[in-house]
Amino acid sequence: MVVVLGIDPGTANTGFGVVMTRGQTMAALDGGVIATGPSEPLERRLARIHARVCDLISEHSPDALAIEEVYFGQNARSAFAVGQARGVVLLAAGMAGIPCFSYTPQAIKQAVCGSGAAAKDQVQRMVGALLSLPELPTPDHAADALAVAICHANGSSLRAALG
Amino acid sequence: MVVVLGIDPGTANTGFGVVMTRGQTMAALDGGVIATGPSEPLERRLARIHARVCDLISEHSPDALAIEEVYFGQNARSAFAVGQARGVVLLAAGMAGIPCFSYTPQAIKQAVCGSGAAAKDQVQRMVGALLSLPELPTPDHAADALAVAICHANGSSLRAALG
Repeated sequence: MVVVLGIDPGTANTGFGVVMTRGQTMAALDGGVIATGPSEPLERRLARIHARVCDLISEHSPDALAIEEVYFGQNARSAFAVGQARGVVLLAAGMAGIPCFSYTPQAIKQAVCGSGAAAKDQVQRMVGALLSLPELPTPDHAADALAVAICHANGSSLRAALG
Repeated sequence: MVVVLGIDPGTANTGFGVVMTRGQTMAALDGGVIATGPSEPLERRLARIHARVCDLISEHSPDALAIEEVYFGQNARSAFAVGQARGVVLLAAGMAGIPCFSYTPQAIKQAVCGSGAAAKDQVQRMVGALLSLPELPTPDHAADALAVAICHANGSSLRAALG
């Protein structure tokens, strides 16, 4: 069994998704969003994101953390904001000795939908199908976090089978 | 007495400086650089930066953390990298309940040299003079961290005097 914690980082909304694979079976163990309000000081928001990721790690003991690479076409200000949230997420994994893996949005879409150019709702539908969810995963950030977890889990099953 | 921990964040080199003010007196209590190697996984590097900042907070019990704002004219990739380091620094303060204050490079130069357009070596000389250091503060990152701490400490003395 391999358990992967997927994270879609952001200061306002950090999506998380926990995916378990055993042989050909894949299932979602958890998923949701860590939301923080803009009225709180940034250091408190980051502390809340960090604490929640630490809790998820304690609860699920993931074998790996998978995280989306930032798309650098966006402006520096938003890359910087995402970077701060990503830093405290990676820190939580680093403190627990859990290896981290980054995937570009293209690689994630390719792994989940078979095309790096897949639309957002297509990713959502495939995440729902691959994890046999009773309904479409929402919100977007949780679906994206599950997608990056699937992307890593699929790769590790492949590596295990080949190895 | 007011103690300020100044930080110049970066993944490879995070400068730190601890400045104490009491009335008209200002002195450096500590200063240096937290260096991490590019061969280490990012999450370990961030964990090392975070742990060292936590240690500095325990050791000096600062009243505030002062940190440089990123200059957003630089490219998104480097803003992102600095953002990650900045996130784990702010987290350390957030976990200890220490308020954080951001200053632009212009505001820091203005506070230290009287001009927002001051050159790097001018900042270095003024930091040395204001803190009565026996020699010029080095490396650059430590000098920059002391400068942002001075910037905040000067502002708080002013606010205290006015208040």
